[in-house]
Amino acid sequence: MTNARISLNRRHLLAGGAGALAAAGLGPWGAREVQAQQTQPASQAQALPPYAAWKDADSLIVHSANTLETRRDAYGTSVITPREQLFVRNNLPPPDASIVADPDAWEIMVEGVKSPRRLTVRELKSMGLDTVAMVLQCSGNGRAFFPSKPSGTQWTVGASGCVIWSGVPVRTVVEVLGGRVDGTRYMTGTGGEKLPEGIDPLGVVVERSVPLRGMEDALLAWELNGMPVPLANGGPLRLIVPGFQGVNNIKYIKRLAFTTDQTDARIMADSYRMAPPGTKGNPSQPSVWEMPVKSWVNHPLPEDRLQPGLVQIEGVAFSSHDPVKRVEVSVDGGKNWRDATLFGPDLGKYAWRQFVLPAQLPAGEHRIVSRATDAGGHVQPEERLDNVRGYNNNSWADHGVTVRVG
Amino acid sequence: MTNARISLNRRHLLAGGAGALAAAGLGPWGAREVQAQQTQPASQAQALPPYAAWKDADSLIVHSANTLETRRDAYGTSVITPREQLFVRNNLPPPDASIVADPDAWEIMVEGVKSPRRLTVRELKSMGLDTVAMVLQCSGNGRAFFPSKPSGTQWTVGASGCVIWSGVPVRTVVEVLGGRVDGTRYMTGTGGEKLPEGIDPLGVVVERSVPLRGMEDALLAWELNGMPVPLANGGPLRLIVPGFQGVNNIKYIKRLAFTTDQTDARIMADSYRMAPPGTKGNPSQPSVWEMPVKSWVNHPLPEDRLQPGLVQIEGVAFSSHDPVKRVEVSVDGGKNWRDATLFGPDLGKYAWRQFVLPAQLPAGEHRIVSRATDAGGHVQPEERLDNVRGYNNNSWADHGVTVRVG
Repeated sequence: MTNARISLNRRHLLAGGAGALAAAGLGPWGAREVQAQQTQPASQAQALPPYAAWKDADSLIVHSANTLETRRDAYGTSVITPREQLFVRNNLPPPDASIVADPDAWEIMVEGVKSPRRLTVRELKSMGLDTVAMVLQCSGNGRAFFPSKPSGTQWTVGASGCVIWSGVPVRTVVEVLGGRVDGTRYMTGTGGEKLPEGIDPLGVVVERSVPLRGMEDALLAWELNGMPVPLANGGPLRLIVPGFQGVNNIKYIKRLAFTTDQTDARIMADSYRMAPPGTKGNPSQPSVWEMPVKSWVNHPLPEDRLQPGLVQIEGVAFSSHDPVKRVEVSVDGGKNWRDATLFGPDLGKYAWRQFVLPAQLPAGEHRIVSRATDAGGHVQPEERLDNVRGYNNNSWADHGVTVRVG
Repeated sequence: MTNARISLNRRHLLAGGAGALAAAGLGPWGAREVQAQQTQPASQAQALPPYAAWKDADSLIVHSANTLETRRDAYGTSVITPREQLFVRNNLPPPDASIVADPDAWEIMVEGVKSPRRLTVRELKSMGLDTVAMVLQCSGNGRAFFPSKPSGTQWTVGASGCVIWSGVPVRTVVEVLGGRVDGTRYMTGTGGEKLPEGIDPLGVVVERSVPLRGMEDALLAWELNGMPVPLANGGPLRLIVPGFQGVNNIKYIKRLAFTTDQTDARIMADSYRMAPPGTKGNPSQPSVWEMPVKSWVNHPLPEDRLQPGLVQIEGVAFSSHDPVKRVEVSVDGGKNWRDATLFGPDLGKYAWRQFVLPAQLPAGEHRIVSRATDAGGHVQPEERLDNVRGYNNNSWADHGVTVRVG
């Protein structure tokens, strides 16, 4: 990353307007970023924000300073998404980079346990160690496919990656601290972002609650894909809730509390709710917690120049709690389906599986779609569940690609 | 990577002497690199050679321009070794970087099959796709622990990594080309390095033969950890022979031949042989093929400042053909052993497993060792098998660490 590129990026950020507002993290979550995104052609590498300057610009679409999407054609077939390709979605600008200079010194307050206390990462590292491979996905991934054009970042498939986290199991920490306080029903994490002054903190704080079932495999993680968690992806310490949409995986976590009720923070109460069309988000609606079963094709893509003949159609498939057991592929838009092969290492139920189907494609246009089924019998639907903000899109029809052969 | 750092590196390379000779790849395999290594303190980041400038200098020990070792304290606990931390061991300097500019155009000649022919990577990609996670290890890994001080790079544990490769199975290519010629017993790969002029090609060419059992899970791979294979690790196309020591995984492979006999190339005939002390390598001795069962501890290490109390002792364990089923850890140099826990995703029999053992360590000095056993009943031995060039060291005693607490 050259200085020239960083400077270019800074100029872009300082240019003012809706994009700059969103870049400062002060718009409604994601609401203003559409405009910023639309000012940038998607077909060329764009300037990365300084905190993510080490990422691979050629693999990313820069929607705004706080929303970077992995290009669909950048996904490899080796299961794990490299750190330098992994998407970023920040609800607020990240804290100063000084917090990752000495990761072991970062502190987290643990509450709602019999012996609440402040713990350093150094102390957490002495308590226990586990590793989980999982899909990290923004709940707005696939928003761009909603015909209703919901506001927010227009992600297609690239607000997602399959990565490996290491840290201490949350249940180990809870055990060491004497167990949960009776009657607590939620695990609530608070991010370490600096809050803008003069605004009600509840309106901007990144604080989310998940039901206790989310605690079972949760980690307080200090490592991503074999290296310290970078600031851009929530380092020095991130709450990892496998199977749950990205927003529940609190970055730079400074407080973990077991609570009787969900937090009143706006990001929990009103945002990230499955609000039916024509309504506003409110706590009575389902929050974006577990990820619905989903798959998509990463090769071939519309931009590929294809000759008639054999093509290896490949992509990824995942679910939240049950392992993917089947992926079907259709090359005629869903009229006829064939079973694809799941290949490569199986990294556990929270990771995605690669699938491949060799297909003879004659000259002409082909609509390629994929449909995943998990061991719990959940089948990826043809239609998305419509909602105001465009969350949880797992429609197989939406995720299809049209390719031209010959 | 700044230009300043690259320049510094170039100055180092051009400084002449034994290091420069080794850097040019013209010494005996690895023989002259000891001196280059000994001129550099191991405790600070060193300049990387230009072809590997994108790697993480802080994670690597630069033995020479063609031998980069992963630091023991850089290994994470997330199973997969990031590309930027992965070791490099080149027998000859890598080809010009232009060969990875258009990876799909790279050509390989396939011989010893019924329909021998030249294939591009583009054609290979249409034939099939599979992915394997595996330990890539230089057969000289652990050489530094031999009391006999064999010549060659003084690797400790860091000429190894666990990575994921994607490509076409060799058996698929063979099938498409009509099957092997009758009577062939070896799979022989030839690297695409430019050979120095005026030297007998057989004396320098990187060409290795493995028995046909190595073909079963072999790939012609174009992807490493989710991205195109970088030049530094053998891109655009590398022969991957899971379970076999690194030298058998031919970089920039330009020819794959099924042959009746092993190649006469010196790197096969005389080098990489398990030559007993006092002998020279020759074809009657075992070649370095399958990797023997092995493990080591990556935390804690001697340089860690430890306080009395609970420590998570962790490390990695692997074998060649049978999955690791047990790792024992001793904190008293091998007198008493306790079973460690294997944790994290199991990526298959060719990958390493992470192990962890929580241990209370009182003030004082402790000798921590680990011992792996695979499902085939192979137990990591206390003693290395002595040999002239220091290959295949899997001694648990050699790989132990002495730490000081309090």
